Amino acid sequence: MAIIGDLSLDLDKISSDTMADVVEMRLRDYFKKKSFKPGDALPKEQELADALGVSRNVLREALSRLRMLGMVETKKKRGMILSSPDVLGGFERVLDPLIISADALQDLFELRLILEMGLADVLYLNLNDQSIHELEMIANNEKKKNKEIFRIANEIAFHGKLYEMAGNDTVKRFQHMLLPVFGFVLQLENEFVSGKVTHLDLVEILKSGTKDDFRNGMYDHLKPHFDRLEAIKK
Amino acid sequence: MAIIGDLSLDLDKISSDTMADVVEMRLRDYFKKKSFKPGDALPKEQELADALGVSRNVLREALSRLRMLGMVETKKKRGMILSSPDVLGGFERVLDPLIISADALQDLFELRLILEMGLADVLYLNLNDQSIHELEMIANNEKKKNKEIFRIANEIAFHGKLYEMAGNDTVKRFQHMLLPVFGFVLQLENEFVSGKVTHLDLVEILKSGTKDDFRNGMYDHLKPHFDRLEAIKK
Repeated sequence: MAIIGDLSLDLDKISSDTMADVVEMRLRDYFKKKSFKPGDALPKEQELADALGVSRNVLREALSRLRMLGMVETKKKRGMILSSPDVLGGFERVLDPLIISADALQDLFELRLILEMGLADVLYLNLNDQSIHELEMIANNEKKKNKEIFRIANEIAFHGKLYEMAGNDTVKRFQHMLLPVFGFVLQLENEFVSGKVTHLDLVEILKSGTKDDFRNGMYDHLKPHFDRLEAIKK
Repeated sequence: MAIIGDLSLDLDKISSDTMADVVEMRLRDYFKKKSFKPGDALPKEQELADALGVSRNVLREALSRLRMLGMVETKKKRGMILSSPDVLGGFERVLDPLIISADALQDLFELRLILEMGLADVLYLNLNDQSIHELEMIANNEKKKNKEIFRIANEIAFHGKLYEMAGNDTVKRFQHMLLPVFGFVLQLENEFVSGKVTHLDLVEILKSGTKDDFRNGMYDHLKPHFDRLEAIKK
Protein backbone atom coordinates (compact mmCIF):
# COMPACT_ATOMS: atom_id res chain seq x y z
CA MET A 1 0.00 0.00 0.00
CA ALA A 2 1.27 3.44 -0.86
CA ILE A 3 2.36 5.58 2.04
CA ILE A 4 1.12 9.12 1.96
CA GLY A 5 3.85 11.42 3.17
CA ASP A 6 4.26 15.17 2.97
CA LEU A 7 2.01 16.11 0.06
CA SER A 8 3.91 19.29 -0.72
CA LEU A 9 6.97 17.20 -1.55
CA ASP A 10 5.12 15.04 -4.03
CA LEU A 11 2.68 17.46 -5.62
CA ASP A 12 3.83 20.76 -7.11
CA LYS A 13 1.52 23.67 -6.50
CA ILE A 14 -0.24 24.79 -9.68
CA SER A 15 1.02 28.31 -10.16
CA SER A 16 -1.15 31.13 -11.42
CA ASP A 17 1.17 31.29 -14.47
CA THR A 18 0.25 27.75 -15.41
CA MET A 19 -3.39 28.56 -14.83
CA ALA A 20 -3.14 31.65 -17.04
CA ASP A 21 -1.58 29.49 -19.80
CA VAL A 22 -4.46 27.05 -19.60
CA VAL A 23 -7.14 29.75 -19.46
CA GLU A 24 -5.57 31.63 -22.38
CA MET A 25 -5.65 28.45 -24.47
CA ARG A 26 -9.21 27.64 -23.46
CA LEU A 27 -10.39 31.12 -24.41
CA ARG A 28 -8.65 30.89 -27.76
CA ASP A 29 -10.27 27.49 -28.42
CA TYR A 30 -13.64 28.83 -27.34
CA PHE A 31 -13.44 31.75 -29.79
CA LYS A 32 -12.56 29.36 -32.60
CA LYS A 33 -15.21 26.79 -31.75
CA LYS A 34 -17.88 29.46 -31.61
CA SER A 35 -16.50 31.18 -34.76
CA PHE A 36 -16.28 34.55 -33.07
CA LYS A 37 -15.60 37.30 -35.60
CA PRO A 38 -13.93 40.67 -35.00
CA GLY A 39 -16.53 42.97 -33.49
CA ASP A 40 -18.49 40.22 -31.74
CA ALA A 41 -19.26 40.87 -28.07
CA LEU A 42 -17.69 38.47 -25.60
CA PRO A 43 -19.29 37.21 -22.39
CA LYS A 44 -18.61 39.21 -19.24
CA GLU A 45 -15.51 38.52 -17.17
CA GLN A 46 -17.48 37.06 -14.29
CA GLU A 47 -19.35 34.68 -16.59
CA LEU A 48 -16.12 33.51 -18.20
CA ALA A 49 -14.45 33.03 -14.82
CA ASP A 50 -17.45 31.06 -13.51
CA ALA A 51 -17.65 28.87 -16.62
CA LEU A 52 -13.95 28.08 -16.43
CA GLY A 53 -14.04 27.65 -12.66
CA VAL A 54 -11.11 30.00 -12.11
CA SER A 55 -10.56 33.13 -10.08
CA ARG A 56 -11.21 36.47 -11.68
CA ASN A 57 -7.52 37.35 -11.30
CA VAL A 58 -6.40 34.37 -13.33
CA LEU A 59 -9.00 35.16 -15.98
CA ARG A 60 -7.79 38.75 -16.10
CA GLU A 61 -4.21 37.61 -16.64
CA ALA A 62 -5.27 35.52 -19.60
CA LEU A 63 -7.43 38.30 -21.04
CA SER A 64 -4.59 40.76 -20.61
CA ARG A 65 -2.42 38.55 -22.81
CA LEU A 66 -5.06 38.49 -25.53
CA ARG A 67 -5.47 42.22 -25.18
CA MET A 68 -1.73 42.70 -25.67
CA LEU A 69 -1.95 40.77 -28.95
CA GLY A 70 -4.87 42.93 -30.03
CA MET A 71 -7.31 39.99 -30.04
CA VAL A 72 -9.55 41.46 -27.37
CA GLU A 73 -10.62 45.07 -26.86
CA THR A 74 -12.85 46.78 -24.37
CA LYS A 75 -15.31 49.25 -25.88
CA LYS A 76 -17.23 51.85 -23.95
CA LYS A 77 -20.79 50.66 -23.39
CA ARG A 78 -20.32 47.45 -25.45
CA GLY A 79 -17.85 45.83 -23.09
CA MET A 80 -15.32 43.28 -24.35
CA ILE A 81 -15.25 42.42 -28.02
CA LEU A 82 -13.08 40.21 -30.18
CA SER A 83 -10.90 42.24 -32.52
CA SER A 84 -8.49 41.81 -35.42
CA PRO A 85 -5.09 41.23 -33.87
CA ASP A 86 -1.93 43.05 -34.83
CA VAL A 87 -0.20 40.15 -36.60
CA LEU A 88 3.29 41.47 -35.85
CA GLY A 89 2.73 42.93 -32.38
CA GLY A 90 3.96 39.89 -30.45
CA PHE A 91 6.97 39.58 -32.74
CA GLU A 92 7.85 43.24 -32.31
CA ARG A 93 7.81 42.93 -28.53
CA VAL A 94 10.44 40.20 -28.33
CA LEU A 95 12.80 41.47 -31.03
CA ASP A 96 15.54 42.58 -28.69
CA PRO A 97 18.94 41.35 -29.96
CA LEU A 98 20.25 41.27 -26.38
CA ILE A 99 17.84 38.58 -25.26
CA ILE A 100 17.22 36.55 -28.41
CA SER A 101 19.24 33.32 -28.62
CA ALA A 102 22.25 33.28 -30.94
CA ASP A 103 20.58 30.67 -33.17
CA ALA A 104 17.42 32.73 -33.53
CA LEU A 105 19.51 35.83 -34.32
CA GLN A 106 21.28 33.97 -37.10
CA ASP A 107 17.95 32.67 -38.44
CA LEU A 108 16.54 36.21 -38.49
CA PHE A 109 19.65 37.48 -40.26
CA GLU A 110 19.03 34.92 -43.00
CA LEU A 111 15.33 35.67 -43.02
CA ARG A 112 16.07 39.24 -43.99
CA LEU A 113 18.30 38.09 -46.86
CA ILE A 114 15.59 35.65 -48.02
CA LEU A 115 12.99 38.43 -48.02
CA GLU A 116 15.17 40.84 -49.99
CA MET A 117 15.98 38.19 -52.58
CA GLY A 118 12.34 37.14 -52.91
CA LEU A 119 10.87 40.62 -53.27
CA ALA A 120 11.45 41.14 -57.00
CA ASP A 121 8.34 39.38 -58.33
CA VAL A 122 5.83 41.17 -56.13
CA LEU A 123 7.73 44.45 -56.52
CA TYR A 124 7.62 44.33 -60.31
CA LEU A 125 3.84 43.84 -60.22
CA ASN A 126 3.56 47.29 -58.63
CA LEU A 127 6.29 49.41 -60.21
CA ASN A 128 5.52 52.94 -61.33
CA ASP A 129 7.62 55.99 -62.23
CA GLN A 130 6.52 58.04 -59.25
CA SER A 131 7.64 55.50 -56.66
CA ILE A 132 10.93 54.86 -58.47
CA HIS A 133 11.53 58.61 -58.35
CA GLU A 134 10.86 58.67 -54.60
CA LEU A 135 13.25 55.78 -54.12
CA GLU A 136 15.90 57.65 -56.08
CA MET A 137 15.51 60.65 -53.76
CA ILE A 138 16.13 58.40 -50.78
CA ALA A 139 19.23 56.91 -52.38
CA ASN A 140 20.49 60.40 -53.30
CA ASN A 141 19.96 61.65 -49.77
CA GLU A 142 22.28 59.08 -48.28
CA LYS A 143 25.46 60.79 -47.26
CA LYS A 144 27.98 60.52 -50.06
CA LYS A 145 30.82 59.91 -47.66
CA ASN A 146 31.07 56.54 -45.98
CA LYS A 147 28.68 55.04 -48.44
CA GLU A 148 30.51 51.75 -48.10
CA ILE A 149 29.38 51.49 -44.51
CA PHE A 150 26.24 49.62 -43.56
CA ARG A 151 23.99 52.20 -41.96
CA ILE A 152 20.81 51.04 -40.34
CA ALA A 153 18.99 54.31 -41.01
CA ASN A 154 19.81 54.29 -44.73
CA GLU A 155 19.02 50.63 -45.02
CA ILE A 156 15.65 51.01 -43.36
CA ALA A 157 14.77 54.02 -45.50
CA PHE A 158 15.82 52.44 -48.78
CA HIS A 159 14.74 48.83 -48.33
CA GLY A 160 11.63 49.92 -46.44
CA LYS A 161 10.66 52.01 -49.46
CA LEU A 162 11.11 48.94 -51.67
CA TYR A 163 8.58 47.01 -49.57
CA GLU A 164 6.25 49.97 -49.63
CA MET A 165 6.55 49.99 -53.43
CA ALA A 166 5.68 46.29 -53.37
CA GLY A 167 2.44 47.38 -51.73
CA ASN A 168 2.81 45.23 -48.65
CA ASP A 169 2.56 47.03 -45.29
CA THR A 170 3.02 43.91 -43.22
CA VAL A 171 6.27 42.95 -44.92
CA LYS A 172 7.45 46.55 -44.78
CA ARG A 173 6.93 46.64 -41.04
CA PHE A 174 8.46 43.21 -40.72
CA GLN A 175 11.72 44.25 -42.40
CA HIS A 176 11.70 47.44 -40.31
CA MET A 177 11.82 45.19 -37.26
CA LEU A 178 14.41 42.85 -38.72
CA LEU A 179 16.96 45.44 -39.82
CA PRO A 180 18.17 46.44 -36.36
CA VAL A 181 18.67 42.75 -35.58
CA PHE A 182 20.58 42.46 -38.83
CA GLY A 183 22.72 45.45 -37.93
CA PHE A 184 23.37 43.98 -34.50
CA VAL A 185 24.69 40.74 -35.97
CA LEU A 186 26.96 42.64 -38.34
CA GLN A 187 28.27 44.68 -35.44
CA LEU A 188 29.16 41.47 -33.63
CA GLU A 189 31.07 40.36 -36.69
CA ASN A 190 32.63 43.76 -37.34
CA GLU A 191 31.51 43.53 -40.94
CA PHE A 192 29.86 46.57 -42.35
CA VAL A 193 30.86 46.53 -45.96
CA SER A 194 28.24 46.83 -48.67
CA GLY A 195 28.39 45.04 -51.97
CA LYS A 196 29.52 46.65 -55.20
CA VAL A 197 25.99 47.35 -56.34
CA THR A 198 24.79 50.43 -54.47
CA HIS A 199 21.30 51.66 -53.71
CA LEU A 200 21.58 54.07 -56.64
CA ASP A 201 22.57 51.21 -58.93
CA LEU A 202 19.45 49.33 -57.82
CA VAL A 203 17.35 52.37 -58.70
CA GLU A 204 18.86 52.40 -62.21
CA ILE A 205 17.98 48.73 -62.62
CA LEU A 206 14.38 49.41 -61.60
CA LYS A 207 14.18 52.11 -64.25
CA SER A 208 15.15 49.93 -67.18
CA GLY A 209 16.03 46.41 -66.10
CA THR A 210 14.01 43.21 -65.78
CA LYS A 211 13.11 41.61 -62.49
CA ASP A 212 15.90 39.08 -63.03
CA ASP A 213 18.33 42.00 -63.44
CA PHE A 214 16.98 43.41 -60.21
CA ARG A 215 17.36 40.12 -58.37
CA ASN A 216 20.94 39.75 -59.60
CA GLY A 217 21.65 43.35 -58.58
CA MET A 218 20.18 42.74 -55.14
CA TYR A 219 22.34 39.63 -54.78
CA ASP A 220 25.46 41.65 -55.58
CA HIS A 221 24.30 44.38 -53.20
CA LEU A 222 23.96 41.79 -50.40
CA LYS A 223 26.98 39.75 -51.50
CA PRO A 224 29.18 40.41 -48.45
CA HIS A 225 26.42 39.00 -46.25
CA PHE A 226 26.06 35.89 -48.40
CA ASP A 227 29.85 35.47 -48.34
CA ARG A 228 29.72 35.65 -44.57
CA LEU A 229 26.98 33.00 -44.47
CA GLU A 230 28.94 30.75 -46.77
CA ALA A 231 31.98 31.03 -44.52
CA ILE A 232 29.89 30.13 -41.46
CA LYS A 233 28.15 27.17 -43.08
CA LYS A 234 31.38 25.53 -44.17
CA MET B 1 -14.36 80.18 -13.68
CA ALA B 2 -14.69 76.56 -14.60
CA ILE B 3 -17.60 74.74 -13.07
CA ILE B 4 -16.77 71.35 -11.68
CA GLY B 5 -19.63 69.00 -12.45
CA ASP B 6 -19.88 65.24 -12.26
CA LEU B 7 -16.26 64.12 -12.45
CA SER B 8 -17.12 60.70 -13.85
CA LEU B 9 -18.52 62.37 -16.94
CA ASP B 10 -15.36 64.32 -17.63
CA LEU B 11 -12.62 61.95 -16.53
CA ASP B 12 -12.44 58.37 -17.83
CA LYS B 13 -11.44 55.80 -15.25
CA ILE B 14 -7.99 54.39 -15.92
CA SER B 15 -8.69 50.75 -16.60
CA SER B 16 -6.47 47.96 -15.37
CA ASP B 17 -5.85 47.15 -19.08
CA THR B 18 -4.32 50.54 -19.63
CA MET B 19 -2.28 50.09 -16.46
CA ALA B 20 -1.07 46.69 -17.63
CA ASP B 21 0.00 48.26 -20.95
CA VAL B 22 2.00 50.90 -19.11
CA VAL B 23 3.55 48.46 -16.65
CA GLU B 24 4.45 46.02 -19.42
CA MET B 25 6.26 48.82 -21.29
CA ARG B 26 8.01 50.03 -18.16
CA LEU B 27 9.26 46.54 -17.35
CA ARG B 28 10.52 46.08 -20.90
CA ASP B 29 12.34 49.44 -20.72
CA TYR B 30 13.78 48.54 -17.33
CA PHE B 31 15.21 45.25 -18.62
CA LYS B 32 16.82 47.07 -21.54
CA LYS B 33 18.19 49.93 -19.48
CA LYS B 34 19.73 47.53 -17.00
CA SER B 35 20.94 45.24 -19.81
CA PHE B 36 19.33 42.17 -18.30
CA LYS B 37 20.51 39.01 -20.03
CA PRO B 38 18.69 35.68 -20.29
CA GLY B 39 19.21 33.83 -17.02
CA ASP B 40 19.48 36.98 -14.89
CA ALA B 41 17.32 36.97 -11.78
CA LEU B 42 14.61 39.63 -11.64
CA PRO B 43 13.46 41.52 -8.55
CA LYS B 44 10.56 40.00 -6.62
CA GLU B 45 6.99 40.81 -7.60
CA GLN B 46 6.34 42.83 -4.47
CA GLU B 47 9.46 44.95 -5.04
CA LEU B 48 8.51 45.62 -8.66
CA ALA B 49 4.94 46.51 -7.70
CA ASP B 50 6.18 48.88 -4.98
CA ALA B 51 8.72 50.57 -7.25
CA LEU B 52 6.10 51.09 -9.95
CA GLY B 53 3.46 52.13 -7.45
CA VAL B 54 0.90 49.67 -8.82
CA SER B 55 -1.16 46.89 -7.35
CA ARG B 56 0.21 43.39 -7.39
CA ASN B 57 -2.67 42.34 -9.67
CA VAL B 58 -1.73 44.85 -12.34
CA LEU B 59 1.91 43.82 -12.10
CA ARG B 60 0.92 40.17 -12.45
CA GLU B 61 -1.07 40.96 -15.59
CA ALA B 62 1.97 42.61 -17.15
CA LEU B 63 4.29 39.81 -16.09
CA SER B 64 1.85 37.25 -17.45
CA ARG B 65 2.13 38.90 -20.86
CA LEU B 66 5.92 38.72 -20.76
CA ARG B 67 5.68 35.11 -19.63
CA MET B 68 3.44 34.33 -22.59
CA LEU B 69 6.11 35.71 -24.93
CA GLY B 70 8.75 33.59 -23.18
CA MET B 71 10.63 36.67 -21.89
CA VAL B 72 10.13 35.82 -18.23
CA GLU B 73 10.23 32.43 -16.54
CA THR B 74 9.83 31.30 -12.98
CA LYS B 75 12.41 28.80 -11.82
CA LYS B 76 12.15 26.68 -8.72
CA LYS B 77 14.26 28.18 -5.96
CA ARG B 78 15.65 30.97 -8.17
CA GLY B 79 12.36 32.78 -8.66
CA MET B 80 11.73 34.92 -11.74
CA ILE B 81 14.43 35.17 -14.39
CA LEU B 82 14.66 36.86 -17.77
CA SER B 83 14.72 34.31 -20.58
CA SER B 84 15.20 34.09 -24.34
CA PRO B 85 11.81 34.67 -25.88
CA ASP B 86 10.21 32.50 -28.49
CA VAL B 87 10.51 34.93 -31.41
CA LEU B 88 7.50 33.49 -33.23
CA GLY B 89 5.25 32.68 -30.25
CA GLY B 90 3.24 35.89 -30.37
CA PHE B 91 2.86 35.62 -34.14
CA GLU B 92 1.69 32.02 -33.88
CA ARG B 93 -1.01 32.95 -31.39
CA VAL B 94 -2.75 35.48 -33.61
CA LEU B 95 -2.50 33.62 -36.92
CA ASP B 96 -6.16 32.71 -37.16
CA PRO B 97 -7.49 33.46 -40.67
CA LEU B 98 -10.97 34.03 -39.23
CA ILE B 99 -9.93 37.03 -37.19
CA ILE B 100 -7.08 38.56 -39.19
CA SER B 101 -8.08 41.55 -41.33
CA ALA B 102 -8.45 41.00 -45.07
CA ASP B 103 -5.50 43.32 -45.78
CA ALA B 104 -3.22 41.45 -43.40
CA LEU B 105 -4.31 38.12 -44.90
CA GLN B 106 -3.39 39.36 -48.36
CA ASP B 107 -0.05 40.65 -47.07
CA LEU B 108 0.71 37.27 -45.49
CA PHE B 109 -0.24 35.50 -48.71
CA GLU B 110 2.36 37.60 -50.53
CA LEU B 111 4.86 37.13 -47.72
CA ARG B 112 4.78 33.40 -48.30
CA LEU B 113 5.44 33.88 -52.02
CA ILE B 114 8.31 36.27 -51.25
CA LEU B 115 9.88 33.74 -48.90
CA GLU B 116 9.64 30.88 -51.38
CA MET B 117 11.15 32.99 -54.15
CA GLY B 118 13.96 34.21 -51.90
CA LEU B 119 14.99 30.86 -50.48
CA ALA B 120 17.26 29.66 -53.31
CA ASP B 121 20.48 31.39 -52.23
CA VAL B 122 20.45 30.19 -48.63
CA LEU B 123 19.19 26.76 -49.74
CA TYR B 124 22.04 26.25 -52.19
CA LEU B 125 24.58 27.03 -49.48
CA ASN B 126 23.36 23.94 -47.63
CA LEU B 127 22.48 21.38 -50.30
CA ASN B 128 23.57 17.77 -49.90
CA ASP B 129 22.57 14.46 -51.52
CA GLN B 130 21.01 13.04 -48.39
CA SER B 131 18.56 15.88 -47.90
CA ILE B 132 17.66 15.96 -51.61
CA HIS B 133 16.89 12.26 -51.32
CA GLU B 134 14.62 12.90 -48.32
CA LEU B 135 12.85 15.64 -50.23
CA GLU B 136 12.31 13.26 -53.14
CA MET B 137 10.69 10.74 -50.81
CA ILE B 138 8.25 13.41 -49.66
CA ALA B 139 7.40 14.39 -53.22
CA ASN B 140 6.93 10.71 -54.16
CA ASN B 141 4.65 10.11 -51.22
CA GLU B 142 2.17 12.71 -52.36
CA LYS B 143 -0.85 10.99 -53.79
CA LYS B 144 -0.47 10.63 -57.52
CA LYS B 145 -4.07 11.47 -58.20
CA ASN B 146 -5.19 15.06 -57.85
CA LYS B 147 -1.62 16.26 -57.94
CA GLU B 148 -2.81 19.46 -59.60
CA ILE B 149 -4.62 20.36 -56.42
CA PHE B 150 -3.11 22.58 -53.74
CA ARG B 151 -3.02 20.48 -50.59
CA ILE B 152 -1.95 22.11 -47.37
CA ALA B 153 -0.50 18.90 -45.92
CA ASN B 154 1.64 18.22 -49.00
CA GLU B 155 2.68 21.85 -49.21
CA ILE B 156 3.75 21.97 -45.57
CA ALA B 157 5.66 18.71 -45.89
CA PHE B 158 7.46 19.65 -49.09
CA HIS B 159 8.13 23.35 -48.61
CA GLY B 160 8.81 22.82 -44.90
CA LYS B 161 11.51 20.32 -45.87
CA LEU B 162 13.05 22.94 -48.19
CA TYR B 163 13.38 25.39 -45.28
CA GLU B 164 14.80 22.61 -43.14
CA MET B 165 17.35 21.95 -45.88
CA ALA B 166 18.19 25.65 -45.84
CA GLY B 167 19.14 25.08 -42.19
CA ASN B 168 16.80 27.68 -40.79
CA ASP B 169 14.43 26.49 -38.06
CA THR B 170 12.82 29.89 -37.53
CA VAL B 171 11.90 30.31 -41.19
CA LYS B 172 10.74 26.70 -41.34
CA ARG B 173 8.37 27.27 -38.45
CA PHE B 174 7.35 30.59 -39.93
CA GLN B 175 6.24 29.08 -43.24
CA HIS B 176 4.52 26.28 -41.30
CA MET B 177 2.39 29.00 -39.73
CA LEU B 178 1.86 30.87 -42.99
CA LEU B 179 0.72 27.96 -45.14
CA PRO B 180 -2.71 27.45 -43.54
CA VAL B 181 -3.34 31.18 -43.99
CA PHE B 182 -2.26 30.81 -47.58
CA GLY B 183 -4.59 27.84 -48.06
CA PHE B 184 -7.43 29.79 -46.49
CA VAL B 185 -7.03 32.66 -48.96
CA LEU B 186 -7.00 30.22 -51.87
CA GLN B 187 -10.15 28.60 -50.54
CA LEU B 188 -11.85 31.99 -50.51
CA GLU B 189 -10.87 32.43 -54.14
CA ASN B 190 -11.72 28.87 -55.10
CA GLU B 191 -8.33 28.58 -56.76
CA PHE B 192 -6.41 25.48 -56.01
CA VAL B 193 -4.45 24.84 -59.17
CA SER B 194 -0.70 24.28 -58.98
CA GLY B 195 1.76 25.46 -61.58
CA LYS B 196 3.18 23.25 -64.29
CA VAL B 197 6.38 22.62 -62.37
CA THR B 198 5.62 19.99 -59.75
CA HIS B 199 7.35 19.17 -56.49
CA LEU B 200 9.10 16.27 -58.23
CA ASP B 201 10.30 18.64 -60.97
CA LEU B 202 11.78 20.90 -58.30
CA VAL B 203 13.62 17.91 -56.83
CA GLU B 204 15.13 17.19 -60.24
CA ILE B 205 16.31 20.80 -60.52
CA LEU B 206 17.98 20.56 -57.11
CA LYS B 207 19.83 17.45 -58.28
CA SER B 208 21.47 19.03 -61.29
CA GLY B 209 20.36 22.63 -61.81
CA THR B 210 21.74 25.98 -60.67
CA LYS B 211 20.09 28.16 -58.09
CA ASP B 212 18.74 30.34 -60.92
CA ASP B 213 17.16 27.24 -62.46
CA PHE B 214 15.63 26.50 -59.08
CA ARG B 215 14.28 30.01 -58.70
CA ASN B 216 12.76 29.90 -62.17
CA GLY B 217 11.27 26.50 -61.40
CA MET B 218 9.82 27.79 -58.16
CA TYR B 219 8.30 30.73 -59.99
CA ASP B 220 6.60 28.39 -62.46
CA HIS B 221 5.45 26.20 -59.57
CA LEU B 222 3.86 29.22 -57.89
CA LYS B 223 2.74 30.83 -61.17
CA PRO B 224 -1.04 30.53 -60.61
CA HIS B 225 -0.62 32.49 -57.37
CA PHE B 226 1.40 35.22 -59.07
CA ASP B 227 -1.19 35.37 -61.86
CA ARG B 228 -3.86 35.82 -59.22
CA LEU B 229 -1.86 38.65 -57.61
CA GLU B 230 -1.37 40.33 -60.94
CA ALA B 231 -5.11 40.22 -61.59
CA ILE B 232 -5.83 41.78 -58.18
CA LYS B 233 -3.25 44.53 -58.52
CA LYS B 234 -4.55 45.70 -61.87
